[in-house]
Amino acid sequence: MAKNGSDHASATARRAPAGAAVLREDKTAAIRAAVFAELAAVGFARMSIEGIARRAGVGKTAVYRRWRSKLHLVLDVVSALAAEGLPTPDTGTLRGDVRMLLEVAARALRHPMASQIIPDLLAEAARSPELADALKAALHDSQEGMAAAMVARAVERGELPADADGRLALDLMTGPLYWRLVVARDTLPDGYLDELADAVTGALGGGR
Amino acid sequence: MAKNGSDHASATARRAPAGAAVLREDKTAAIRAAVFAELAAVGFARMSIEGIARRAGVGKTAVYRRWRSKLHLVLDVVSALAAEGLPTPDTGTLRGDVRMLLEVAARALRHPMASQIIPDLLAEAARSPELADALKAALHDSQEGMAAAMVARAVERGELPADADGRLALDLMTGPLYWRLVVARDTLPDGYLDELADAVTGALGGGR
Repeated sequence: MAKNGSDHASATARRAPAGAAVLREDKTAAIRAAVFAELAAVGFARMSIEGIARRAGVGKTAVYRRWRSKLHLVLDVVSALAAEGLPTPDTGTLRGDVRMLLEVAARALRHPMASQIIPDLLAEAARSPELADALKAALHDSQEGMAAAMVARAVERGELPADADGRLALDLMTGPLYWRLVVARDTLPDGYLDELADAVTGALGGGR
Repeated sequence: MAKNGSDHASATARRAPAGAAVLREDKTAAIRAAVFAELAAVGFARMSIEGIARRAGVGKTAVYRRWRSKLHLVLDVVSALAAEGLPTPDTGTLRGDVRMLLEVAARALRHPMASQIIPDLLAEAARSPELADALKAALHDSQEGMAAAMVARAVERGELPADADGRLALDLMTGPLYWRLVVARDTLPDGYLDELADAVTGALGGGR
């Protein structure tokens, strides 16, 4: 069920074409790209369908034929991104997997677009239960499965006790990085990812 | 130096009164309260000086006599809040201090106003270096000193090695809570704070 969350959101967010008109895929792609650029430039609250259409080089009608509203458009784009997912690290040790996930997450969070768009969508989610649900589903789909698989493999190898908690593991890996890179808007000191990988591995009860 | 960050921001954010006019403190307090209410209701981007004045029951001029702009007003209010600070837990053990800090932080982050205002200010900070700096200074003032003191006491008691890292401790305590409560907008499962306190204490190298 949870696995299909984003497909479901995606299907309901996209509008059925009026009549039998065929929607040109290149226009759809241009609009999607314009959404990210507009989100980063002006933010969700100030973003308009008109601005998106202008940046994509299409008419406003082309946007409205595909999506009912700004919110539906953003929901669809976010869901599609989450569905792509990330490869699950599988290095053979818990410490190695944790270290690799931290590397991937830090790179993603340091991306200028992510560091502008994510806080923006979260701010809007505080006022839009629909957006909050879509973001939550996207997070679950893309990250919880990965953390659970990582912990399950460590349990199989005997590195962690059988009752090790995959969700706590996820919170301990992504929480500190998010806090430091997105909330405190700080850089990572030298050796930080190594120190954090040791701390997280130790916290979960794995040997260092 | 760092200690004075918020006082400095506060002093520069507040405008000197025009002429020798005396600013009524009750009006100032009403405007400050209105800022929080407006931030929570409509968010920074949509918030206007007019809306704040209306909610505070004062004229727009009363606001502009005190603060140059919406941004300066918010900077001042945030700086004042950070300067109040929080009491540093001092329970006699690292585990006890960590557990109490998690309790206080979870309560603060679950507050409806915090969960609306914080994401909003972070979203704006992604576009305003001035706001980003003020938020960073506020975080440093209110939290880093507390985490450093907590770790220093644990080192004195021999619970942690002398090189234990106060900033990593802070990231490990607030990061996961922030991630789960504000980003994933989830509830805390039963026993979560205890589990997290054990994990953080273990991660820092303290005995469980």
